[in-house]
Amino acid sequence: MSHYSPLIEELIDALRVLQGVGRKSAQRMAFNLLQHKREGALALSAALEKAVGHIGHCQHCRCLTEQAVCHLCASEKRDKTTLCVVESPADVIAFEQAGGYNGQYFVLMGHLSPIDGIGPEDIGIDRLIERAQSLQISELILATNPTVEGEATAYYITEQLRQMGVKVSRIAHGVPLGGELEYVDSGTLAHALSGRRVVE
Amino acid sequence: MSHYSPLIEELIDALRVLQGVGRKSAQRMAFNLLQHKREGALALSAALEKAVGHIGHCQHCRCLTEQAVCHLCASEKRDKTTLCVVESPADVIAFEQAGGYNGQYFVLMGHLSPIDGIGPEDIGIDRLIERAQSLQISELILATNPTVEGEATAYYITEQLRQMGVKVSRIAHGVPLGGELEYVDSGTLAHALSGRRVVE
Repeated sequence: MSHYSPLIEELIDALRVLQGVGRKSAQRMAFNLLQHKREGALALSAALEKAVGHIGHCQHCRCLTEQAVCHLCASEKRDKTTLCVVESPADVIAFEQAGGYNGQYFVLMGHLSPIDGIGPEDIGIDRLIERAQSLQISELILATNPTVEGEATAYYITEQLRQMGVKVSRIAHGVPLGGELEYVDSGTLAHALSGRRVVE
Repeated sequence: MSHYSPLIEELIDALRVLQGVGRKSAQRMAFNLLQHKREGALALSAALEKAVGHIGHCQHCRCLTEQAVCHLCASEKRDKTTLCVVESPADVIAFEQAGGYNGQYFVLMGHLSPIDGIGPEDIGIDRLIERAQSLQISELILATNPTVEGEATAYYITEQLRQMGVKVSRIAHGVPLGGELEYVDSGTLAHALSGRRVVE
């Protein structure tokens, strides 16, 4: 039996939609909001409603945005000849924060996963091909995650785009900077070894 | 410079009102909601608005509830002669889940903290005295947290209620069940020793 009043119970349940929030955290958040942060709770309520109502996908890169075309795709300053394919909007942000890339993006919003019924049309492969053709890109950079599904997705895209005569590259996998070899997993270490480059 | 569109930025900012959610978690939550859980996000928005609009304090125990009197205070089955004083609504839930207590509660919604400007009127001491008088309680149990502020609050309440001739008790502090002595802090161990009881 629940010890909460129905509305508190409803709020706790609703908070669990947030990633990484379990029952106990949701309880603590609910009480904290109701005791100390009622204005913040109302602001969050409004922000959620507005975001869900207005944020859609960019026509060009499929990234999340409230505009028809996101600011990265709309920018005149960015290189139009390279296209970087990532799985999620968060990956775009990670690249932008890292700096060093000034080309276009394409966000798959997922990866191929036949077991979950996610096929090429769900991750927008046809739109990726259209975008690559309309931009007349010289290089397509595959930056899907180094997981089984990410690798399979990268392989599938490579097959599709090689027919078009586009140069396709994959971001390097290896030992992360600041990492200690001793603690790096064996898969990564094997990748780092096979991907070694001649020092010039 | 932010790499997000204004509405996403607003949502991320708003999510940070939640306890224990920093910038990075808020980003992940925002993207997760917008990509996969739009209905859940709307439900959360509605639950927050409803909760803030309707949930107030119980007239008797000051606990959070949308009714005038909470279900614990309204219950006919509960003992009216003991009153347990706690700091927050979450403490009430903790006692109810633990079981073994069937009396009334009083929620201070905080503790005395002169440095933050929180005095006796802010934690409802006058209402506690009224409640103790109207119930004609035989025992008042102090279950404030075993922190400096909690102890000070317990001491203050003891002084106020002793004048009324009410028996005042404090919950036991000592080694938690399942804990290993080796890992218990010295303050707790000293409490456990001074609070020892004769085995009969």
